[in-house]
Amino acid sequence: MRAVDVIRKKRDGGTLDRAEIEFFIAGMVRGVIPEYQVAAWLMAVYLRGFGPDETAWLTDAMVRSGARADLSDVPGPKVDKHSTGGVGDKTSLILAPLAAACGVVVPMMSGRGLGHTGGTLDKLESIPGFRTDLTLAELRAALAAVGCAMIGQTAQVAPADRTLYGLRDVTATVDHASLICASIMSKKIAEGIDALVLDVKVGRGAFMQTEADARRLAETLITTGRRAGLRVEALVTAMDAPLGRTVGNALEVVESIETLKGRGPEDLEALCVTLAARMVGLAGLAADAQEAERRVRHALRSGAGLRKLGEIIGQQGGDPRVVDEYDRLPTAPYHCVVAAETSGQVAALDADRIGRASMLLGAGRERAEDLVDAAAGIRLCAAIGDPVEVGAPVLQLHSGETARLDAALDLARRAIRVTREPPVPRPLVLGVLRADGWSPAPSPASSASSRGGGG
Amino acid sequence: MRAVDVIRKKRDGGTLDRAEIEFFIAGMVRGVIPEYQVAAWLMAVYLRGFGPDETAWLTDAMVRSGARADLSDVPGPKVDKHSTGGVGDKTSLILAPLAAACGVVVPMMSGRGLGHTGGTLDKLESIPGFRTDLTLAELRAALAAVGCAMIGQTAQVAPADRTLYGLRDVTATVDHASLICASIMSKKIAEGIDALVLDVKVGRGAFMQTEADARRLAETLITTGRRAGLRVEALVTAMDAPLGRTVGNALEVVESIETLKGRGPEDLEALCVTLAARMVGLAGLAADAQEAERRVRHALRSGAGLRKLGEIIGQQGGDPRVVDEYDRLPTAPYHCVVAAETSGQVAALDADRIGRASMLLGAGRERAEDLVDAAAGIRLCAAIGDPVEVGAPVLQLHSGETARLDAALDLARRAIRVTREPPVPRPLVLGVLRADGWSPAPSPASSASSRGGGG
Repeated sequence: MRAVDVIRKKRDGGTLDRAEIEFFIAGMVRGVIPEYQVAAWLMAVYLRGFGPDETAWLTDAMVRSGARADLSDVPGPKVDKHSTGGVGDKTSLILAPLAAACGVVVPMMSGRGLGHTGGTLDKLESIPGFRTDLTLAELRAALAAVGCAMIGQTAQVAPADRTLYGLRDVTATVDHASLICASIMSKKIAEGIDALVLDVKVGRGAFMQTEADARRLAETLITTGRRAGLRVEALVTAMDAPLGRTVGNALEVVESIETLKGRGPEDLEALCVTLAARMVGLAGLAADAQEAERRVRHALRSGAGLRKLGEIIGQQGGDPRVVDEYDRLPTAPYHCVVAAETSGQVAALDADRIGRASMLLGAGRERAEDLVDAAAGIRLCAAIGDPVEVGAPVLQLHSGETARLDAALDLARRAIRVTREPPVPRPLVLGVLRADGWSPAPSPASSASSRGGGG
Repeated sequence: MRAVDVIRKKRDGGTLDRAEIEFFIAGMVRGVIPEYQVAAWLMAVYLRGFGPDETAWLTDAMVRSGARADLSDVPGPKVDKHSTGGVGDKTSLILAPLAAACGVVVPMMSGRGLGHTGGTLDKLESIPGFRTDLTLAELRAALAAVGCAMIGQTAQVAPADRTLYGLRDVTATVDHASLICASIMSKKIAEGIDALVLDVKVGRGAFMQTEADARRLAETLITTGRRAGLRVEALVTAMDAPLGRTVGNALEVVESIETLKGRGPEDLEALCVTLAARMVGLAGLAADAQEAERRVRHALRSGAGLRKLGEIIGQQGGDPRVVDEYDRLPTAPYHCVVAAETSGQVAALDADRIGRASMLLGAGRERAEDLVDAAAGIRLCAAIGDPVEVGAPVLQLHSGETARLDAALDLARRAIRVTREPPVPRPLVLGVLRADGWSPAPSPASSASSRGGGG
């Protein structure tokens, strides 16, 4: 078999077989298929498409390019959550402790942020001392001790994904459902979990710009996961405005703790409860959806989730006092306010522009090697639907350098839209996809949370 | 400007502008745009297409990636011929001396063979002492002395083409009209010529498999050449069976000399006269097509073309005695014959299979770094339309190793088709394309040469 023939077959719209995909990925990992052949193949896949079989085989080849965590000696159902990435999406920090407090074992492996969407690892690392680079042995110990660990992707897991992702990033082949699916699912399958809840974001601040694209990605993820023996459910959720009231690493950690104290923004709390309840359901720890949600709400109200977060922080070398003493987290020395230019109601807080402004402030990375400023970010002083007077603060920018405030200001200003008429509320959860089909109606937990009533 | 944005634009079917193409090619040559980005871009170009403007701009960027020969101090009209490559295509060795004998200045820059199509350089280098690596200064001196030089592509000319061709070869992006066009025309424009005759091959032994594809390539070449200020004409010619009676480097040199002595196969002589006459016409050295052809036929009959070949060989360090003493050329120690398996008429001598068999005998290259055996090749003992008895020799294989004879035998056997009914003759010249349009009727010179009457 020759790499050029595999490329030609896909170029001409053919369906690759399992052996061809395995040959290509294994050759890439061993370095005998050079990056330029992989790049040409990626573009052919992007433009010619990749079917369900091909996606499953690619995922499997990527899993087998590295180690697979064996969590069989850790008792209990292992369930993870994965979000396709959104602006201000700190749900992992809230729902992982909530699910763990309900008895779910959560071996959460996350990535760093690239572009304007933040990474869970960056958020966690704003906590003094917090280590995300656990080995597989330390991961097992943490799961046994506290039922949850939040770590980075180790070098042993799916090394093919690192090579492919690096090439996709520079060859304009990132936003393709099958390639996104294989990247996500290969890492999740290698984690050794039993079930997975997916949060597929759609809108201004997400990879997927249309509901149809998001739904297709959700379907691809579910099909691929099921073929690998995982129970998978997916929520398609709106990402037009940032989630919650903060964007930026330490700012989001504080907001997550506040949410676990019952004082979080309504949209964020609702989504975390919904996602955590689905984890509890997939773990088989509740008779039905209502019971799962009751258990999660109890973990929130009783403070069990908050205590679990403290345990996780302590287990991973972080300072658990941050849970009560926010001044132990980094704060930015320079702030400025972006005010409403007219009176009316907040109609839009463009997630894409706020995300990019936040990156300019230092909270995100343009390139993988960039360092992030843990304290930088944006606080939303008003939510969608809130009435504002001209001159009232809408956004508050935080940075370690005044030059960065200047650089971000114009983009932040253009993120705000204030209108005379109130905006039409849009639900946060747009649909749920299970193995048995699609239900467009939002679940009880999320219907409470329309984007028109944030705050 | 970022390379990834240029790739994305082409991926999405956009038309690149001149600055984007210039940026991409210049960046590639300077090494700041890595090969994997070029490879992804090539696949996007292949699958999304490249318009006439884009092709002209790419060609121009490739010309400007290197040196351009200044032949303004060499008196006389400079005209070259280029063939897209066929099996047994030795026309350059015959028509270049013929055109030069008629007063055309022929600065012919050729490539080595890759795959089953032979390269003019490989053929010339079977002549003892023949140097193809002239510098631009030596090229000018040779043109002043004998009116013709046949050299390899120097490192100074269109370096972008070497990088692009190397990547196309391994990424399945070779057979695309715009990319082929830019590769051919960038080198021809950099040669410093005034006019160019193109021989676009179509059929079993050519890149182009259909007449429509060949005609589109011819049109692309003419449009691109004209935009660069060149007078260009193209012939579309059949490449179903090998041209002439030999395939292989030294074998083809002998056949070329025989043709210049007036003893060549009819199809080969007719095509060489047609192409050389078009060079004389484009050079402005004849009032009309008839006069151009009369002058070329005179150069052939008078022996002026043969004498010119001797001068070219002498000028470039080769042994001119080969013109009369063929035993000064390498010959293969091992031969074997492929005989007709039934009696009838030769209906097909598949150029693709004969070309690949010839490569297995050692006459061609599978990889750019392979060495060729100058003596290896195949002699056609019968031509299309010839009657044969069962057991009569049809092909004679030549090689330096008996194992190679064994390796090539099956493919050679499967190249032959003998039928009871005589084959329908197919003209060799399928059409002519000038700046003013397409004329499907073959010219007088070529109409004499149907493939049914070879021999």
